Amino acid sequence: MIRVGILGATGYAGAELVRLLCSHKDAEITMLASKSYAGQKMSEVYPYLKGVCDIVLEEANPDVAAEKCDVVFTALPHGVSHEVIKALYEKGLKVIDLSGDFRYNDIKVYEEWYGVAHSCPELLKESVYGLCELHRDEIKGARLIGNPGCYTTCSILGLAPLLANDVIETKNIIIDAKSGVTGAGRGLNLAYHFCECTETMKAYKVATHRHTSEIEQELSLIAGEEIKLSFTPHLIPMKRGIYATEYANLKKPYTKEELIKMYKEYYKDEKFVRVYEKGLPENNHVSGSNFVDIGLEVDERLQRVVVVSNIDNLIKGAAGQAVQNMNILFSLPEDEGLSGAGFYM
Amino acid sequence: MIRVGILGATGYAGAELVRLLCSHKDAEITMLASKSYAGQKMSEVYPYLKGVCDIVLEEANPDVAAEKCDVVFTALPHGVSHEVIKALYEKGLKVIDLSGDFRYNDIKVYEEWYGVAHSCPELLKESVYGLCELHRDEIKGARLIGNPGCYTTCSILGLAPLLANDVIETKNIIIDAKSGVTGAGRGLNLAYHFCECTETMKAYKVATHRHTSEIEQELSLIAGEEIKLSFTPHLIPMKRGIYATEYANLKKPYTKEELIKMYKEYYKDEKFVRVYEKGLPENNHVSGSNFVDIGLEVDERLQRVVVVSNIDNLIKGAAGQAVQNMNILFSLPEDEGLSGAGFYM
Amino acid sequence: MIRVGILGATGYAGAELVRLLCSHKDAEITMLASKSYAGQKMSEVYPYLKGVCDIVLEEANPDVAAEKCDVVFTALPHGVSHEVIKALYEKGLKVIDLSGDFRYNDIKVYEEWYGVAHSCPELLKESVYGLCELHRDEIKGARLIGNPGCYTTCSILGLAPLLANDVIETKNIIIDAKSGVTGAGRGLNLAYHFCECTETMKAYKVATHRHTSEIEQELSLIAGEEIKLSFTPHLIPMKRGIYATEYANLKKPYTKEELIKMYKEYYKDEKFVRVYEKGLPENNHVSGSNFVDIGLEVDERLQRVVVVSNIDNLIKGAAGQAVQNMNILFSLPEDEGLSGAGFYM
Amino acid sequence: MIRVGILGATGYAGAELVRLLCSHKDAEITMLASKSYAGQKMSEVYPYLKGVCDIVLEEANPDVAAEKCDVVFTALPHGVSHEVIKALYEKGLKVIDLSGDFRYNDIKVYEEWYGVAHSCPELLKESVYGLCELHRDEIKGARLIGNPGCYTTCSILGLAPLLANDVIETKNIIIDAKSGVTGAGRGLNLAYHFCECTETMKAYKVATHRHTSEIEQELSLIAGEEIKLSFTPHLIPMKRGIYATEYANLKKPYTKEELIKMYKEYYKDEKFVRVYEKGLPENNHVSGSNFVDIGLEVDERLQRVVVVSNIDNLIKGAAGQAVQNMNILFSLPEDEGLSGAGFYM
Repeated sequence: MIRVGILGATGYAGAELVRLLCSHKDAEITMLASKSYAGQKMSEVYPYLKGVCDIVLEEANPDVAAEKCDVVFTALPHGVSHEVIKALYEKGLKVIDLSGDFRYNDIKVYEEWYGVAHSCPELLKESVYGLCELHRDEIKGARLIGNPGCYTTCSILGLAPLLANDVIETKNIIIDAKSGVTGAGRGLNLAYHFCECTETMKAYKVATHRHTSEIEQELSLIAGEEIKLSFTPHLIPMKRGIYATEYANLKKPYTKEELIKMYKEYYKDEKFVRVYEKGLPENNHVSGSNFVDIGLEVDERLQRVVVVSNIDNLIKGAAGQAVQNMNILFSLPEDEGLSGAGFYM
Repeated sequence: MIRVGILGATGYAGAELVRLLCSHKDAEITMLASKSYAGQKMSEVYPYLKGVCDIVLEEANPDVAAEKCDVVFTALPHGVSHEVIKALYEKGLKVIDLSGDFRYNDIKVYEEWYGVAHSCPELLKESVYGLCELHRDEIKGARLIGNPGCYTTCSILGLAPLLANDVIETKNIIIDAKSGVTGAGRGLNLAYHFCECTETMKAYKVATHRHTSEIEQELSLIAGEEIKLSFTPHLIPMKRGIYATEYANLKKPYTKEELIKMYKEYYKDEKFVRVYEKGLPENNHVSGSNFVDIGLEVDERLQRVVVVSNIDNLIKGAAGQAVQNMNILFSLPEDEGLSGAGFYM
Repeated sequence: MIRVGILGATGYAGAELVRLLCSHKDAEITMLASKSYAGQKMSEVYPYLKGVCDIVLEEANPDVAAEKCDVVFTALPHGVSHEVIKALYEKGLKVIDLSGDFRYNDIKVYEEWYGVAHSCPELLKESVYGLCELHRDEIKGARLIGNPGCYTTCSILGLAPLLANDVIETKNIIIDAKSGVTGAGRGLNLAYHFCECTETMKAYKVATHRHTSEIEQELSLIAGEEIKLSFTPHLIPMKRGIYATEYANLKKPYTKEELIKMYKEYYKDEKFVRVYEKGLPENNHVSGSNFVDIGLEVDERLQRVVVVSNIDNLIKGAAGQAVQNMNILFSLPEDEGLSGAGFYM
Repeated sequence: MIRVGILGATGYAGAELVRLLCSHKDAEITMLASKSYAGQKMSEVYPYLKGVCDIVLEEANPDVAAEKCDVVFTALPHGVSHEVIKALYEKGLKVIDLSGDFRYNDIKVYEEWYGVAHSCPELLKESVYGLCELHRDEIKGARLIGNPGCYTTCSILGLAPLLANDVIETKNIIIDAKSGVTGAGRGLNLAYHFCECTETMKAYKVATHRHTSEIEQELSLIAGEEIKLSFTPHLIPMKRGIYATEYANLKKPYTKEELIKMYKEYYKDEKFVRVYEKGLPENNHVSGSNFVDIGLEVDERLQRVVVVSNIDNLIKGAAGQAVQNMNILFSLPEDEGLSGAGFYM
């Protein structure tokens, strides 16, 4: 039984980790930490967990964590968990960090897009980018994982096969992405009140969203050349989901069937990637699951491909992929605790 | 491994059965039948099940079912499954019927409220009302179970302890119930279109809803006298959930604490019933789970109790309770396949 | 042209007043005050008003208001506007207050249910309860109006004809009410975040909600005897609307037709009350309008009537009724600025 | 008083026309026609109009229409109203057609994208494309107006100033558009049921949506060269709204301020176009109004502009623009009946 701790257990990603791990047959939650709710039971903060997870939340303490846990998930805002992560790392624990802090190969890119100095450059070098489908082998041997962002997981997996097969131009790639409201987190904010959020939508952080840099890092790696692209996030009145529509110019004419075949080949061993031969993804097909659904159409008039990729932001875009990373780290079946169908209704 | 068949697999209750059974470790789906979609894969009708349940739907056939299955769930509209149920029953299978056809002790009550003659009176005598918390012992030995309605499960469990303890008057009981839209099923109907349904709500079938008679049957049994009550259903713009607010006059003054204690005692061995000492149920605390959440307040000014009970209509109100019945029938742990937390977000 | 000021212009009720008054042909907004947003344009706080209302918000100042306005709407929380209201009143302005402070005939009832001492008892005596359909004549000569609550307007108008015609018992009246989320106001609160609010519902303040006392005051007046009743509010995932389901025992048997006739007679001169001969109200039939929709069913088995009444909480339940009161005060057609159809879609 | 008839009065666009015209002080509805509901009152089909519009629906009859009306709005599916439109036209009436039939300059483009032969080519020549902001002068003298589509109005107005000022490349224009569900109309369809539509979203008709050709026609006209572009529609769980995100490469570097200034100049006489100097449009800022809100950001890294344009699909995207066209045709103030603020909440 893997002993698991979670720091930041009461944010949306942390709570989703709790929910998933409660059904994981080889993991046991041994520590939940929360700054705001220490002393209360997890099920007092989230009554839906009553009878499922009644563990008492504690203050984050690396010594205690080291004693109680084999692996710790840190689900805290970027920039605030360096010290504790360092302490845990030095004590030999495995750490899966859900913030943006350990996702970058180049510290300058991090510092430019996040606007802060990285306080832990030496650990950044040790960390592995935890996009399981692309970095599985490195993850196996890692001790510190930078769990990918939600928009990024969805966008990268949507475009990877095209770049790996060198069929699109690297200029003029555009990603128009849509997110459910849990993506905004649980902090108090009038903008996310029901009455300000339902029956409406909006674009935000156009041309400046941090996930742009994370997507560019990974796609450049695959393409073998530097890629710069447009990434536009939108807020949609639904709780869960990232739905990304990606545009790219084809280097030469391809049919839809050829490209679908390419995707199926590229992801042929991936349990969580479902390529649509017919139709296109819809958000309630992935909601509540760890699946990545991908469809595409070729616009022959324009020699352009339009790809649609879709994940649940809290699962494949956060907690689910974190569990998948844990499974890889501990040599468990990769879908342990993640094999269930989503919600749909 | 219990071999399970489902008739009516593509309605909302049937599809939820499929979803739940895919994660049940002692059951295996061996037959899915659907009149409308025979020949297609379950995952073509519900693409979210792709890779989870790709079984091909077939026409309902009792002989095939008898060969392939140990138990069959029938999730068809009332009045249409008599013949097939009879055939299955005679071949020795266990049948759990989700329609209203096998829930009544008195055929006259059924015929009066459903407005049709019962075509299978001899089987009605054999059937057991499958409200697990109240009829567990009878269920154990049954071969045909009338799985309770959604409104009824929620309402009966909300009021049972008060009547069992003889603390309320049996006149002037009022149940004001609210349902999510999946309760209306999957048939084409303009009234359930998104644009006609979101941002609105309505009462319907006031004083005439069939579930009234089912609630009265069970509460009368508990009270040991005939109870007639008001039951008013409302449609609420959410997908899942039954939320029932129940009003009853107390025979003498009780405090909230006394009544809570009574409820806790009454349900002390029940895994799926959660009694709130503080606060009141909220629908997203049960959504996606088999829990029944119950809270109450005493109005001392009026010597009246207001009880709030809450379930997920598709789970404890349909497919979940059906699985719970199967578990009882086959002497499995009652929460097998049903122990997960709900969705909340 | 009536010169209108609004204190608390940026809360939901205040903003709705602005919206309605912008289309009122005999009124002109001359002053908008807001504590939180003074110095900004109304259309900066609510960009949807850009080009419609670009007035700059100011600090509330009675002297300025007295100079600029003929009537002032105060849309502030209870207990905070006494001083300014007194100052305005003494300067001869008409005041329509949307808080609970000036709705009561008996100061003790106010102080008991609101849990605070009333700081302006002398004005309370001068104030008139502004439920237009019931107190039109008193309103005409008033200078200070206590604009009714949303739950109360809906509930009182739903039950008034039954009590005025002495057809129901005054014991065992139960009002089960459902509200949209704008009813909770615009203050920061995790409970009203989209992700905590959509796809869920809950009862709250059971047996203790303040509106109970306001409803009891008015229904007792109509009945000519003291009435105590159960009132239970629920929060529903929609923006606007109060939907109240009312239960009462009939003194003797009546048919639905007889009661409908009674309602039609009682409201025969009321432009804003629509009695349903067939069917029942649905919230999107009143949303965005000043209408009160009422339907009912008789449960002959129980000699009980179930009434359903429905309003838009921000319009007939707040800003619309306030405008209606202004129209009465200034001898304008009562539906001036309020005659439009609602939104529906 | 302009006498107005509506054919197809009970679809969503038709019903919205009724709602708007009921508040129009210079127009009077004299005829409502509906194939499905002839014989019923408009307020029986849409009870929210009770007391607002109780006109009885009739069968469409050109002779009757010619007698009763000065102008007729035809809100029918494409291809079905040719005969009646021809008859009305020949009798001297003005006709504003909301289908796609009279929007094209080149019949071949219509026939290619709609996949049917145009049965009325001679009238197509007479018709004017009713995008008011771009074709006001032609509309003034027209007798037959092809009222623009919802996606097209939003997209064209979003990009027009960039092309008119020759600042963007005409290749690599991408429009990623999002629509509320009323855009799908009122026909029975499981895909638009609440439970299939809420908490989800999807792309559809990728690279094949008819509105592509309409957008290309107008933007080519402005640019003075043939433009081909990508247009991708998405369905979003909200009732109203078109939200379009447009991407184009700048011919040379421009700042955001320069482009905003260009937009403000281009639309300086337009009452219904609001250009955002700060922030970006949000759908509830236009919902319920005839406004077109436009914002933009420049991505200096990529020398690309991202424009966001936003309308209410039922108003500026259908019924509102149709009324605006009527106002132009009859030399009324262009915002008559359209000047109110939207809903927001």
